[in-house]
Amino acid sequence: MNNNDFIFGIRPIIEAIRSGKEIEKILIKKGLKGELFIELNELIQENNLHYQLVPEEKLNRLTRKNHQGVVAFISPVPFYDAEEIITRTYENGETPFFVYLDQVSDVRNFGAIVRNAECAGVHAILVPEKGSAQIGADAVKTSAGALHIVPVCKIKNPVKALETIKKNGVKIIAATEKADIDYTEAQMDGPCLLVMGAEDQGISPEILRIADEYVRIPVFGKIESLNVAVASGILMYEVVRKRKEENKSTN
Amino acid sequence: MNNNDFIFGIRPIIEAIRSGKEIEKILIKKGLKGELFIELNELIQENNLHYQLVPEEKLNRLTRKNHQGVVAFISPVPFYDAEEIITRTYENGETPFFVYLDQVSDVRNFGAIVRNAECAGVHAILVPEKGSAQIGADAVKTSAGALHIVPVCKIKNPVKALETIKKNGVKIIAATEKADIDYTEAQMDGPCLLVMGAEDQGISPEILRIADEYVRIPVFGKIESLNVAVASGILMYEVVRKRKEENKSTN
Repeated sequence: MNNNDFIFGIRPIIEAIRSGKEIEKILIKKGLKGELFIELNELIQENNLHYQLVPEEKLNRLTRKNHQGVVAFISPVPFYDAEEIITRTYENGETPFFVYLDQVSDVRNFGAIVRNAECAGVHAILVPEKGSAQIGADAVKTSAGALHIVPVCKIKNPVKALETIKKNGVKIIAATEKADIDYTEAQMDGPCLLVMGAEDQGISPEILRIADEYVRIPVFGKIESLNVAVASGILMYEVVRKRKEENKSTN
Repeated sequence: MNNNDFIFGIRPIIEAIRSGKEIEKILIKKGLKGELFIELNELIQENNLHYQLVPEEKLNRLTRKNHQGVVAFISPVPFYDAEEIITRTYENGETPFFVYLDQVSDVRNFGAIVRNAECAGVHAILVPEKGSAQIGADAVKTSAGALHIVPVCKIKNPVKALETIKKNGVKIIAATEKADIDYTEAQMDGPCLLVMGAEDQGISPEILRIADEYVRIPVFGKIESLNVAVASGILMYEVVRKRKEENKSTN
């Protein structure tokens, strides 16, 4: 982890929030009290920030300096509102193309996926507020800078957000080894949102339930699946291909 | 680097070679002399092993123990002969499908590429003896174990080896951003060898010259190219798709 990725101390964090810095997550020592903390706590509530109560040792492992019981992770990139981006995409006459990463926690995979997204013309990457990869200097580096280009939307309630997106005419396509349809045969030239699952667990059941279509990438050896960054690249470029073919056939 | 990946000391290395261990590379202190070293040197020549003369500090950085001026990297996987594999592939009535990695030095990318290869049914991965990723525990881990399944061939003279492969009826397809042909339009359903270039430099000119076809994966953003592991996955699965389509049309 890069030192630039977090700040500590109650006052510096209050100032960071007030100055509009993008806070990824705040770790707070269990049982923390005091007037200044009350002020911080109010700001956290007002701004709807993601926080977590942790034992003091966790904070001590992050920094040996006087953290006063709070450490905040700062994102090097701003976060966007998913619905605003969809609306803007339609307004611009473009066909929405989104990717939702369900608990993809490996920073290098996350960075590589954002890079794929930038190359394939994805409009936004959606991630749940909890359980995603830490968006810090390492993620920016593996993304080859794509994190500064592709909007990332953090969503509090993924099921609700995906249902809203679905109502906006976007097809939810889930990548899962258990799917019956080969990805090459899926219909994915219209507005779509690709769902990629966690490296170990795959897509969670509540997200799977919302999907309109399930696709799989066939494997011919003994290993059960591709790396999630590679799989996402194959599927994103399948969308690119299908849209191109669709354009050809309608022109 | 994992400690299991290398051994040191003249006698242990002599024994490792005699016992048939797969030696990746031997680092030898410049100006090393002595009877035992002469014995080692003869074994290196006899077995055609890859070695490199280095300043003593390089060895000291690898181990603080008494390395006696030599450190040998051991491969956790055996190496195969490329020509033998091609012959065997044809004999089995299969359509050869190879991947040559031109100086892909990042261990995680290398591992992910081998995983792609295992999933896509590639017969062998070819790498040059010099300048490739260290094939050690880290590579095996990122390959998800694929390195124990997909044969890896180390080649001394890549230009010569690729020319021989080409004479065996295998089409050499180079992935390069400068190509005119979109990968979806390339003819790649027959016997083929995909060439993927180094992360920074791309494919070297002498290898590019041998290629029969140049393909590119289009990018639609500001970043010039995909990560090499992702790009290789997209191209390998394009070969899979084209072969499937070809099968359909001939049956």
